[in-house]
Amino acid sequence: MKNFIFQNPTKLIFGKGMIAKIAEEIPSGKKIMVTFGGGSVKTNGVYDQVKEALKDRDFIEFWGIESNPTVETLRKAIALGKENGVDFLLAVGGGSVIDGTKLISAGLKYDGDAWDLVLRGAYSETVPLGTVLTLPATGSEMNSGAVISRTETKEKYAFYSKHPVFSVLDPEVTFSLPEKQIACGIADTFVHVMEQYLTKAGESSLMDRWAESILKTLIEIAPKIKEDKTNYDLMADFMMCATMGLNGFIAMGVSQDWCTHMIGHELTALHGLTHGQTLAIVLPGTMRVLKEKKAQKILQYGERIWGLSTGLYETKIEQAAEKTEEFFRSLGLATRLSEVGVGEDTILEIERRFNERHAGFGEDGDVTGEVARRILEACK
Amino acid sequence: MKNFIFQNPTKLIFGKGMIAKIAEEIPSGKKIMVTFGGGSVKTNGVYDQVKEALKDRDFIEFWGIESNPTVETLRKAIALGKENGVDFLLAVGGGSVIDGTKLISAGLKYDGDAWDLVLRGAYSETVPLGTVLTLPATGSEMNSGAVISRTETKEKYAFYSKHPVFSVLDPEVTFSLPEKQIACGIADTFVHVMEQYLTKAGESSLMDRWAESILKTLIEIAPKIKEDKTNYDLMADFMMCATMGLNGFIAMGVSQDWCTHMIGHELTALHGLTHGQTLAIVLPGTMRVLKEKKAQKILQYGERIWGLSTGLYETKIEQAAEKTEEFFRSLGLATRLSEVGVGEDTILEIERRFNERHAGFGEDGDVTGEVARRILEACK
Repeated sequence: MKNFIFQNPTKLIFGKGMIAKIAEEIPSGKKIMVTFGGGSVKTNGVYDQVKEALKDRDFIEFWGIESNPTVETLRKAIALGKENGVDFLLAVGGGSVIDGTKLISAGLKYDGDAWDLVLRGAYSETVPLGTVLTLPATGSEMNSGAVISRTETKEKYAFYSKHPVFSVLDPEVTFSLPEKQIACGIADTFVHVMEQYLTKAGESSLMDRWAESILKTLIEIAPKIKEDKTNYDLMADFMMCATMGLNGFIAMGVSQDWCTHMIGHELTALHGLTHGQTLAIVLPGTMRVLKEKKAQKILQYGERIWGLSTGLYETKIEQAAEKTEEFFRSLGLATRLSEVGVGEDTILEIERRFNERHAGFGEDGDVTGEVARRILEACK
Repeated sequence: MKNFIFQNPTKLIFGKGMIAKIAEEIPSGKKIMVTFGGGSVKTNGVYDQVKEALKDRDFIEFWGIESNPTVETLRKAIALGKENGVDFLLAVGGGSVIDGTKLISAGLKYDGDAWDLVLRGAYSETVPLGTVLTLPATGSEMNSGAVISRTETKEKYAFYSKHPVFSVLDPEVTFSLPEKQIACGIADTFVHVMEQYLTKAGESSLMDRWAESILKTLIEIAPKIKEDKTNYDLMADFMMCATMGLNGFIAMGVSQDWCTHMIGHELTALHGLTHGQTLAIVLPGTMRVLKEKKAQKILQYGERIWGLSTGLYETKIEQAAEKTEEFFRSLGLATRLSEVGVGEDTILEIERRFNERHAGFGEDGDVTGEVARRILEACK
């Protein structure tokens, strides 16, 4: 096991009816800005619950944080927050709204342009942020990371600030989610776990099993959720998996990869594809191209998750990739670039971008532009 | 899944050489009191490492917090701390030293007698506390609980204050632990998990699997640790299991039992038995006496942990209890009251004490004095 430092101060407030508690969590006298995405919270009752909870508080609203939140939109929110002396933020939405609000929370404490913060990669001076999660997927509700896009240049980068001080997770608010968003959320969660798991064998027995626990739970609940996405316990399991998949709990003392995400981000930046969808396409390719260095862990994954206990070494590795691909297909997602209209020119552009950034991703820092190209070729 | 609120702010600082980092974690200008148990930290190098780390800091030492820390000892520490204006505590030791120091941390902020705090059950005004863990077992390094004894009256009760602000876990400091302490630490961890797991079925797929992950890891590493307790990765796995077994991570949204602990505490209070040893005796009895209400979960445990997939329902439940008992015996622990010289008079005294306190422990609050007696009869 590697040395590590772990700390996650976010207060999780989980369960039906818990949105009513948000006012207790925000210190009195705060000037609150509530941030939203599109209008779905107005039709599923979340907006009304938030307004009711904050009825005696001083708040303004900012609407329109889009999927893959852009600095162009967030600059407007920062300007509005500064004008109004905002000193508490409440993000109500999915990972994009929460990610975007993390940049706002840093931007409110920064004099320059918000894109400078993104390029800097991290900024720890922030306005405190609470969240009400509406879409389980990114884990942003319980970590310090965000991913911010810039429309103008088709760029998309990670940015780190602080953990939310609290996050409210009510499974009932997920009942009205479209199937496609649920599928992408499951895929996103699955790949978050794989990025922290499918690396080096033997680093931590417990972390391995905790990661496998999330994978097994997702595989167990995914077909049941397809049957009934208004089953409270199933959606609670899903919410738990998404939050626990990227809050540091399964990452203690173990190596991490993230090359699938880095490649996926480029596909989103260049083609506007949904994040979870890009991951479902790239991960099987990553497994196939990096099968030698990841062999031991892929075999463990194949055995423990898919019961692949017999057969030749090479066959089992390919079967593990196939099973993964089948799982994503069972969610209704594409698993090939050709299905989403991405061709050779994009592959070459991503190689070029990685080379330009001198990229070296993955647990050993050896996923260069050339390796990314080979991974994408395997996803055609 | 039940509604829940979860927050655990403790900063874990894990790995070899990490004791050197403690000074960075304690704000400058603090008057520190370092608390210890007996002298084992002087022979295993921990004391020297702590002194070196604090060489430029203002600290006093308090020695002699015993196993099952007593209020009689802790009162002396509180008096010393008050005299010296202590405003930061560093507990260096196992669960007993950390538990005891939690009472000191509240006692320093309280004008009355420390036993009042224990009887009150909780006190949240405290002096901040950091820890350097030397014995993986209780999880105290990452939770807000403590168990405090009173010699005079042979009483032992739980007390809650605040989480440590940081805890340093260096697996190397465990290499010199006696085998018996390691065995008790493994049993303690195992039963902590069972108290949070062997309750109601179907509350959370993920929490179930995370609990099972700790149990499986303990079962996997226990015989290997017996072979070589200086294997860094094994002891790192053990430390992780102990800390993660009682820090709230496997308790989100699920029922908890704790009747085995409540009965075990009485055995310690009356006979001075080591905590982990009492649990190894009581748990199989709890499983046998409460087998009907816990049936579904015992079957799941038997199947997933011990591979008991065939056989009659009744047989499998008894086999699950037998396997559990065998595991504790494999650690070198007693699993019967007769082996540790506890007889009928103690059983009746525990029944009397539970009745006097109108006890109703367990996930349904139905473990009364009479049920506790039946559990203990099954442990003879």
